Amino acid sequence: MRMRKKKHLDERLNAVSSVNLGWIPDAVHEGGVELLNISDIFGNDHPLHLEIGCGKGKFANTIAKQMPDVNFIAVEQTVNVLVSAMEQTKESEINNLRYLMGKAEYLAKVLPPKSVQKIYLNFSCPFPKNSYAKHRLTHERFLDIYKILLADGGVIEQKTDNSKFFEFSLNSFCDNGFRLHNITFDLHNSDFKGNIITEYEQRFLSQGLPIYRLEAYI
Amino acid sequence: MRMRKKKHLDERLNAVSSVNLGWIPDAVHEGGVELLNISDIFGNDHPLHLEIGCGKGKFANTIAKQMPDVNFIAVEQTVNVLVSAMEQTKESEINNLRYLMGKAEYLAKVLPPKSVQKIYLNFSCPFPKNSYAKHRLTHERFLDIYKILLADGGVIEQKTDNSKFFEFSLNSFCDNGFRLHNITFDLHNSDFKGNIITEYEQRFLSQGLPIYRLEAYI
Repeated sequence: MRMRKKKHLDERLNAVSSVNLGWIPDAVHEGGVELLNISDIFGNDHPLHLEIGCGKGKFANTIAKQMPDVNFIAVEQTVNVLVSAMEQTKESEINNLRYLMGKAEYLAKVLPPKSVQKIYLNFSCPFPKNSYAKHRLTHERFLDIYKILLADGGVIEQKTDNSKFFEFSLNSFCDNGFRLHNITFDLHNSDFKGNIITEYEQRFLSQGLPIYRLEAYI
Repeated sequence: MRMRKKKHLDERLNAVSSVNLGWIPDAVHEGGVELLNISDIFGNDHPLHLEIGCGKGKFANTIAKQMPDVNFIAVEQTVNVLVSAMEQTKESEINNLRYLMGKAEYLAKVLPPKSVQKIYLNFSCPFPKNSYAKHRLTHERFLDIYKILLADGGVIEQKTDNSKFFEFSLNSFCDNGFRLHNITFDLHNSDFKGNIITEYEQRFLSQGLPIYRLEAYI
């Protein structure tokens, strides 16, 4: 059963190779990896936005269609979820969105320094146990990577339904020199316009639960 | 009835004149006001902490007893509440706490620039209606005053039970160049030690409601 599933996944991945930039090299492959040439990939010099943890890709596909003059790279480590996002991009003939498979902690091995204007963190896993805090995508060790990737004046936009994770993130951004802006404890009852609702967000909205959001400038 | 109450208040105020620094001059009295000489008032050069909106003074009296090497000034505009705070200070023979009566917006007329090491904002009125936002003690027009009063490296410590006011305050501090630290959405289930519970805080605690807290550095 497992083999069949895997084979099926490989076939699906082969069919979407045109939007797949491949695996982010992990620690095992240290050294000898070339940085991606973003201009070559997209055939233009548009600004680059990065979504880390794109899941099935509803957000990435929607925003890429809305903003044709921005290039998008979406990252996800769970490939049998990510493949759906890739299929949607290929089917919709979206030319300004590509994907990376793997872990965010090695992103600086493939993306050039200061190449990213905006990073989206949408409903990242909150890792509620304190012993897993270093896995949270707003932990200092990730912020250090974002500082490498972000261009001057770049921004991180975070959304979450988890108040403890939001509280952790506020402190982590502040303690690491980011300037916060447009903090809201209830996005859908705020003045913020143009929100793109993710699959995960829809579930919380239908339960009437608040969504937290912030912008963190470098 | 009103006259009797007022007469009674005057008598009480007379009895506590040794701890009362008097009225903060308001706009009517513009010009000709001398700044307070903090060293003369306290007879030493200890650091000065300021509580804005001290109510009946439980917090101010408790912390002044706990920290004899710090001078405290507590401010409150509702004098028939404030007089209880003053009486408590006099009865307990607390020598490092004085009071100012009146509005915080005129504080820079009586306190010298850079004279304050710490400002406490404990359960300030949240003014929930947006049309009253400028009355919130973390509105930009108050932060501008705190910037005048605070010494280099000075800090504002805020506590509130009101999430909308806390959200407003986070944004106001960030937008006005303060650096936030130790943000918590649930003070009494956080790692913070040494909290002094105010009268107002006790009510919320007994209902199991969370208390928000932050530190904002200049």
